[in-house]
Amino acid sequence: MTEISSHTRPGGRSARVRGAVHRAVEELLAEGPPETLTMPLVATRAGVHPTTVYRRWGSLAELLEDVATSRFSGDIVVPDTGALPDDLERWVTDVATDLADPDSLALIRASIGSSPAGACACTADRHAQLAAIFDHERSRGGHPPTVERATDTLLGPLYYRAIFTQQPAEPSWARELVDTLLR
Amino acid sequence: MTEISSHTRPGGRSARVRGAVHRAVEELLAEGPPETLTMPLVATRAGVHPTTVYRRWGSLAELLEDVATSRFSGDIVVPDTGALPDDLERWVTDVATDLADPDSLALIRASIGSSPAGACACTADRHAQLAAIFDHERSRGGHPPTVERATDTLLGPLYYRAIFTQQPAEPSWARELVDTLLR
Repeated sequence: MTEISSHTRPGGRSARVRGAVHRAVEELLAEGPPETLTMPLVATRAGVHPTTVYRRWGSLAELLEDVATSRFSGDIVVPDTGALPDDLERWVTDVATDLADPDSLALIRASIGSSPAGACACTADRHAQLAAIFDHERSRGGHPPTVERATDTLLGPLYYRAIFTQQPAEPSWARELVDTLLR
Repeated sequence: MTEISSHTRPGGRSARVRGAVHRAVEELLAEGPPETLTMPLVATRAGVHPTTVYRRWGSLAELLEDVATSRFSGDIVVPDTGALPDDLERWVTDVATDLADPDSLALIRASIGSSPAGACACTADRHAQLAAIFDHERSRGGHPPTVERATDTLLGPLYYRAIFTQQPAEPSWARELVDTLLR
C-alpha cells in the first residue's frame, strides 16, 4: 500500500527531495570552498540517503547542472519598455545585478568547474531572453542585431568581469555596452 | 650533512617537486571530471608525500592558482607586426587557439571552480599582453583604445564562447572582434 501511495503521488515526495537537495547545494556553496562539495555531504545536509541523490542525479556535475538550470531560468523578467535601447539597458543591469550576488556567482563558478553542460545551464536562458527582446523589436518593425552579436557584446564582458576580475559593473558601463552593440 | 646539502641547493629538489605536482594536476584534469581532483590524489600521482603538497600549497585552490599562473604566463609571444590591427588580430587568434585546447580549457574551468584568485591567474597575463601591444602603438605615435575596452570587446567574447558555448572561434570572427574595437 505504501508503495502504491508513493506511486500515485510521485510529485509530492520527489519535489520535496529535489527542493531539499537544491537548497543543500546552495547552502554548502555559500559556506565553503567548492572543493568540499560532495554528493554524500549534500545528502547529509538535505537529510536524504546518499543513494537517493546518486540515483536521481548520477554525479555532482549533473546535480550542479540541474541546480543552475532551475536557478537561472526565468529569474529575470524580460523588459518590454517599447524601445530597444531601454529594454537592453534594463536587461544588462538586471544581469549585472544577478552576477554581483555572491551566491549566484558561487553557483556559476561551481557549475563551470564541474562540466561544460553545467556552464551552459548558467546562461541558456540569457540567450532566450535576448531573443525575446529582439522579437519585440521586430514586431515594432525594427531591425535588431543578431543574438550572436549581442552575446559577444553584452554577455561576454558581463560574465568576463564577474568571473575573471573583481571590477564592479557600474550603470554607466551597462549603457556603454548597449551603445557599442547598437551603434 | 644531507640537510645542509639540501639547504644549499633548495631550487633543485623544490623545482623537481613543483614540476611533478604541476604535471600531476594537468594529467588528472585531462583524465577525469574535476570533482575527482584532490590533494592526496595529486600527491600520489606526483610520487610525493601528501604533507609536502599541503605544506607547499595549502589548498587545492592555491595549487590550481599556481598551475594556472605558470601555464598562462608568457605562453603567447606578443606580436609586433608594426600595425595595431594586425597585432591584435594575430593575438586574438593565438588566444582563441589556446582556448580551443581541451587541456587549457580544463585548467581554466577547474581554476574558476576553485576560487576567484584561480580564475584571475588564467587571464592576468592577457591584460599585460594587451598593454604591451598598445605600448607599441603609442611608441609609433598612435592612440590605442584602453586595455579595459579591449578586455570587454576581445577577451569577454573569447572566454564567454570557450566557457559557456560549444561554438568554435573562426578566423573571420577574430577580425570582426578587432574591427568592433578599432572602429
